[in-house]
Amino acid sequence: MCARGATVAVDLMSGDAGAQAALPACLALLQARPLSRVVLVGTTDALRATEAWPAEVQTRVRCVTATEVVTMDDSIEVALRRKKNASLRVAIEQLKADPASGTMADVCVSAGNTGALMAVARYVLKTMPGIDRPAIATVMPNDRNGDTTVLDLGANVDCTPEHLLQFALMGSALVTAVDDIPAPSVGLLNIGEEMIKGSDTIKRAGELLREAGERGWIHFIGNVEGNDIFKGTARVVVCDGFVGNVALKASEGLARMISAMLREEFSRSPLTKLAALAAMPVLNRFRQRVDPRRYNGAALLGLRGLVFKSHGSADAFAFENALLRAHDAASHQLLDRIQACIHDSLAPAAPIPAGPDSVMPAA
Amino acid sequence: MCARGATVAVDLMSGDAGAQAALPACLALLQARPLSRVVLVGTTDALRATEAWPAEVQTRVRCVTATEVVTMDDSIEVALRRKKNASLRVAIEQLKADPASGTMADVCVSAGNTGALMAVARYVLKTMPGIDRPAIATVMPNDRNGDTTVLDLGANVDCTPEHLLQFALMGSALVTAVDDIPAPSVGLLNIGEEMIKGSDTIKRAGELLREAGERGWIHFIGNVEGNDIFKGTARVVVCDGFVGNVALKASEGLARMISAMLREEFSRSPLTKLAALAAMPVLNRFRQRVDPRRYNGAALLGLRGLVFKSHGSADAFAFENALLRAHDAASHQLLDRIQACIHDSLAPAAPIPAGPDSVMPAA
Repeated sequence: MCARGATVAVDLMSGDAGAQAALPACLALLQARPLSRVVLVGTTDALRATEAWPAEVQTRVRCVTATEVVTMDDSIEVALRRKKNASLRVAIEQLKADPASGTMADVCVSAGNTGALMAVARYVLKTMPGIDRPAIATVMPNDRNGDTTVLDLGANVDCTPEHLLQFALMGSALVTAVDDIPAPSVGLLNIGEEMIKGSDTIKRAGELLREAGERGWIHFIGNVEGNDIFKGTARVVVCDGFVGNVALKASEGLARMISAMLREEFSRSPLTKLAALAAMPVLNRFRQRVDPRRYNGAALLGLRGLVFKSHGSADAFAFENALLRAHDAASHQLLDRIQACIHDSLAPAAPIPAGPDSVMPAA
Repeated sequence: MCARGATVAVDLMSGDAGAQAALPACLALLQARPLSRVVLVGTTDALRATEAWPAEVQTRVRCVTATEVVTMDDSIEVALRRKKNASLRVAIEQLKADPASGTMADVCVSAGNTGALMAVARYVLKTMPGIDRPAIATVMPNDRNGDTTVLDLGANVDCTPEHLLQFALMGSALVTAVDDIPAPSVGLLNIGEEMIKGSDTIKRAGELLREAGERGWIHFIGNVEGNDIFKGTARVVVCDGFVGNVALKASEGLARMISAMLREEFSRSPLTKLAALAAMPVLNRFRQRVDPRRYNGAALLGLRGLVFKSHGSADAFAFENALLRAHDAASHQLLDRIQACIHDSLAPAAPIPAGPDSVMPAA
């Protein structure tokens, strides 16, 4: 894999904590990845804080001023038509070559609201040839001490089988780029492992994915169920945006409930508080493993440019994780990989390569 | 609420543990609910064990022999056409009046495979007038120390808005019967709280549910998201079977992963094992609260008879919980309540009652 660094355009302003979370995260990225560069997009006030950064780091920073901020409540309409100088939009525009200098960023990270971010990114960047609808992919931890990439997560509520195939190709390319796995396993989210389960759309998608597997575009392992996300049965789990969004949010809700119950039980009485003290190192390690901030950074895939979304409520640590994920994906040519995958699938359908069964016996 | 007991027909044979789990669970039900009666359906061998039960309890037991068992791998075809003397089917048949004695059970419980149970129940009992498709409802624990009833969970992969309305009416009646809440809050599972979110089916379902709320059939509170299941925002959450199944299984998978991680962290070294010892009483209380066996017992709603499904892998404690839930629902006239709800909704559409705004001012 190529180890060159990448340039990350960062929208400093759009998260709940604004530049207070984003700036320390950018500094941490620059220090963790010596070849990385950042383009910071924010108000003059926010950008001023970088003056105190170490000189070595400053050489890898470029600042771009934006005068407006897209809020969580702004409609897509407002984000698209009214706030043309918002940090979210200016950050995305950094992915296009500057006519004067020719410089451009490789990837953009924003904690802006999902609807606005997707709409502005689509408008500014356009979708890739062969992609009908961009998708949002995120990672969830699994039982095998790894993570499972799930897409789509809310951009598309009604998906055709062809859309689901595109998601599979893009998700597979994402895992290859980020985790350096040549042919990650891909599963289709369904309500049973048998091929006959699910709606007509899902059954047809299963056929398309199987065919894509036979052509060598992806490593398709068949249907998976909701629990397989956390079992790590497949590295990539493909579903429509409605189902993916519900599964993600239900999991977030359950994790929050469980940790609240654990806290409640440990603070019930002086005796249980003493037990908590004894168990503290263990509980801390456990908390670290399930910390959702470690999984921050969802990829918007299928656009002519790389955009990552940080959670709106991200703190500096969570934002840093989104930046690292975005940087590493870009430095491993995620965009080129997706384009290559999609390009292969668009070529005139060649016959499916024959399996070992049909190989002629040696004379 | 009426406190009369109910007669529960129990399929002893279909779960993974067969009569070994089911029989002790039946005895526990009879002891916990002094007015309850059971009809035990199983092989002669299995039924013989009841001879050792206390005499008082035996007066409330009737035994019915079945010669076959539907296995987890049996197709719906096999369950329907070939195994007519299977315990699963004979247990469901107890819900129909015996022509000789006129006696019948009020509710049936089986741990048989979901597809076969639903198919046989539909065939034997038929659906209720006004119901196109029966639904499966289960409860999940929530943050408010209560539980959330979710339906559908897998019986219907493609739902129309009208189906979702029927699920809402039936789920509402279920919570009223089991938890004695006159008008439980009902939410429609969606990917955002705003009315404009989701597919056309979901949007139209939202309109139907709102109208049902205005007519006083249900207490509709609007859209809810995946995390609201565990927040307890609504007592009843309505969704199609595909989404419900994925949300349920993803939650099961996550809960299993979290508890495995917790166990792993506490058994990492002699020191952490010591900490586990100190924290044992707290961890046990915590485990009890999230124990999935406490939430066993899914209701098949919309049939002309009450059927509850226990988890296939249920042990005696889990099976007992399914029996208690089924018994209490039946003794609180769940079937009549559902029929009344559906009947109201089938009446010729009366104008929606006027709200306070349109009341004429007193002269």
